[in-house]
Amino acid sequence: MGHEHISRAFDIELDELRQSILQMGGKVELMIANSVKSIVERDTELAEKTIAQDHEVNGFEVSIDERCLELLALRQPTARDLRFITIALKLVTDLERIGDQCTNIARRARELNEEPPLKPYIDIPRMAHWAEVMVKEALDSFVRGDADLAIKVCKDDSFVDELNIQIQRELLTFMIEDPGTISRSMKLNYISKSLERIADHATNIAEMVIFMVKGKDIRHTIA
Amino acid sequence: MGHEHISRAFDIELDELRQSILQMGGKVELMIANSVKSIVERDTELAEKTIAQDHEVNGFEVSIDERCLELLALRQPTARDLRFITIALKLVTDLERIGDQCTNIARRARELNEEPPLKPYIDIPRMAHWAEVMVKEALDSFVRGDADLAIKVCKDDSFVDELNIQIQRELLTFMIEDPGTISRSMKLNYISKSLERIADHATNIAEMVIFMVKGKDIRHTIA
Repeated sequence: MGHEHISRAFDIELDELRQSILQMGGKVELMIANSVKSIVERDTELAEKTIAQDHEVNGFEVSIDERCLELLALRQPTARDLRFITIALKLVTDLERIGDQCTNIARRARELNEEPPLKPYIDIPRMAHWAEVMVKEALDSFVRGDADLAIKVCKDDSFVDELNIQIQRELLTFMIEDPGTISRSMKLNYISKSLERIADHATNIAEMVIFMVKGKDIRHTIA
Repeated sequence: MGHEHISRAFDIELDELRQSILQMGGKVELMIANSVKSIVERDTELAEKTIAQDHEVNGFEVSIDERCLELLALRQPTARDLRFITIALKLVTDLERIGDQCTNIARRARELNEEPPLKPYIDIPRMAHWAEVMVKEALDSFVRGDADLAIKVCKDDSFVDELNIQIQRELLTFMIEDPGTISRSMKLNYISKSLERIADHATNIAEMVIFMVKGKDIRHTIA
């Protein structure tokens, strides 16, 4: 009975860990949406707000990291629980770096909003939407232990990569045709690259989830 | 005596883990040097060789990850050993991603070598050298538990950031003055960005080492 009691307490602790990760994920997803919205709607105030939010994401990283270490030391988990916690440890680093990317996007937005718009933005918001959904689904697949959803995330990454290549080509054409657009094109190019990196982080998380559920390491096997 | 026996075996295991990480680091450092050498010396064969080496780095990541999980499950470490192993788990992800960046650089090198050189490369090899030293020192600081060396790595990151900004400005001038250089300038720009990201990974590792040694989380406090 004593053992069962500990197990139950540990289950509650693991569930709290899951909730903290989802909360951190929610913050990060909002940062993705708002950083790109601040470009599309030329809303510099929203860009500033997004930059300020990175602080909260960093706080989450530190506290979830500490919690994972405590659980490893106190509960000495094995097998599936051990894998869950070690993946949580790695995953918060990805989430924190997504926050950094959103800060980069918001900084470029602030600069772009000082200049006349280059063109209506269509593909960048599309990319941001994909990236946001990928992050959400990667985290859902983690908390639910849903390998199928994680596999979907890995597959979706190729759409984001394609969009990035398409945007890069288009910007190259702009720059060659009118050198006056170079500085703005470069900024949009960075934003597109940042979104691609966000999708990569989501893919990294999803790959770890597949490993967690299937116990098989698919990293470096799915191209 | 039984306990002492286990401790000793565990010390040997931890030392083996350290050696594996240094070996992986050695591969990665060579990839940084060679990816940039393949641009400077216009050596496409070396670029191909570098791309092929990423496979070995990925293999190291998978095996070190597994080893860390085994040690956590079998030895149930606490305190300093626990922190060491969890940081090893995070750190190999950074090393693996440095390998990916080197692959990106080598791919761009392959493309650049098909076109006439844009200019003599001076700052990019300088940046690569800094980045390589930072990775080496970050790993040395980890295996030795040397917080002072880790702090040096964090400080060095600002040099790489400055070089990156300088290169970006120079390339922007090239592109505006002669649109015929845009495509090549964009590739060099990516390479510069990749080197900056490699230095960021080294900084991430160094910050974790400071946490490991001092037990204090300095991430998000050193700008």
